[in-house]
Amino acid sequence: MSHPAHRRPEYHKINKDLFVLTYGALVAQLCKDYEKDEDVNQYLDKMGYGIGTRLVEDFLARSCVGRCHSYSEIMDIIAQVAFKMYLGITPSVTCNNSSRNEFSLILDKNPLVEFVEELPAGRSSLCYCNLLCGIIRGALEMVHLAADVTFLQDRLKGDSVTEIGITFLKKRDEKKYRRKK
Amino acid sequence: MSHPAHRRPEYHKINKDLFVLTYGALVAQLCKDYEKDEDVNQYLDKMGYGIGTRLVEDFLARSCVGRCHSYSEIMDIIAQVAFKMYLGITPSVTCNNSSRNEFSLILDKNPLVEFVEELPAGRSSLCYCNLLCGIIRGALEMVHLAADVTFLQDRLKGDSVTEIGITFLKKRDEKKYRRKK
Repeated sequence: MSHPAHRRPEYHKINKDLFVLTYGALVAQLCKDYEKDEDVNQYLDKMGYGIGTRLVEDFLARSCVGRCHSYSEIMDIIAQVAFKMYLGITPSVTCNNSSRNEFSLILDKNPLVEFVEELPAGRSSLCYCNLLCGIIRGALEMVHLAADVTFLQDRLKGDSVTEIGITFLKKRDEKKYRRKK
Repeated sequence: MSHPAHRRPEYHKINKDLFVLTYGALVAQLCKDYEKDEDVNQYLDKMGYGIGTRLVEDFLARSCVGRCHSYSEIMDIIAQVAFKMYLGITPSVTCNNSSRNEFSLILDKNPLVEFVEELPAGRSSLCYCNLLCGIIRGALEMVHLAADVTFLQDRLKGDSVTEIGITFLKKRDEKKYRRKK
């Protein structure tokens, strides 16, 4: 893992609060548009996917990360370089299975919910930050890594931490999937 | 005008691209929701207003700006402190009338449209960045300054610069308005 060398760091930085409040407006709008939480979650994920596919090129150029040789290394890049660069936080990483393709990002604090005290009324299944899952999924796909990315725990839902689960879908599985088609 | 003293500057900074792309997703969603450009513009302004009313308190705390004694001073704060802090740019300010209550912010570059090459098809009246007008209007209202804030020119519409017009509504006008009610 090479160390990141940010180019023009100042030019690329803006104040977080503007982003956090704008994101809140986006979620509120989707809650207006879609009655079911599942639909809002899916839509946020889809939007995030589109953002991730665009963000990744710039990320690779600016972070100067080298080629990764394991899922663990990729997780470290996501947590220590990408989250740090884009959200100013560094989640911790845990590996959840012995075949080392299931991981979690544990977020002690989550800047995206800084102005959110609780989920909107009647929205108990809302994954408020689901855009993040989509972004990670989209960015990984652009470097030819298929992954499932979902919230496993969420402080907004009363959990003690916020946890994003990332399961890398192995090539073996992909081949299986293709054969089934 | 006091100089700004940012508290915890690093903690409050995030990468701009994530915000810019998320904002793009918000505008795209509103374009889906509302057929008329005017409705999208109005909605962005309304959303921005809400954001501005929440952002201003934090801005005043972090920027440590002193009391302003003229509209010109307020414009300087908006351009040199607020825009710099939130968007990383410093627009130039012009005063447009002799009674010194009509101003323009001239944006040489506009980070919000960095990924936007042109307005979406059939959306020629869209004020893509109208959220900004709402934010300025909302923030000013929270410090008891009523203002009209609109885009006068927009590079996305083929103008040579992007220009936000701010007209402070004088107290005299407010009284008139109240009497009319």
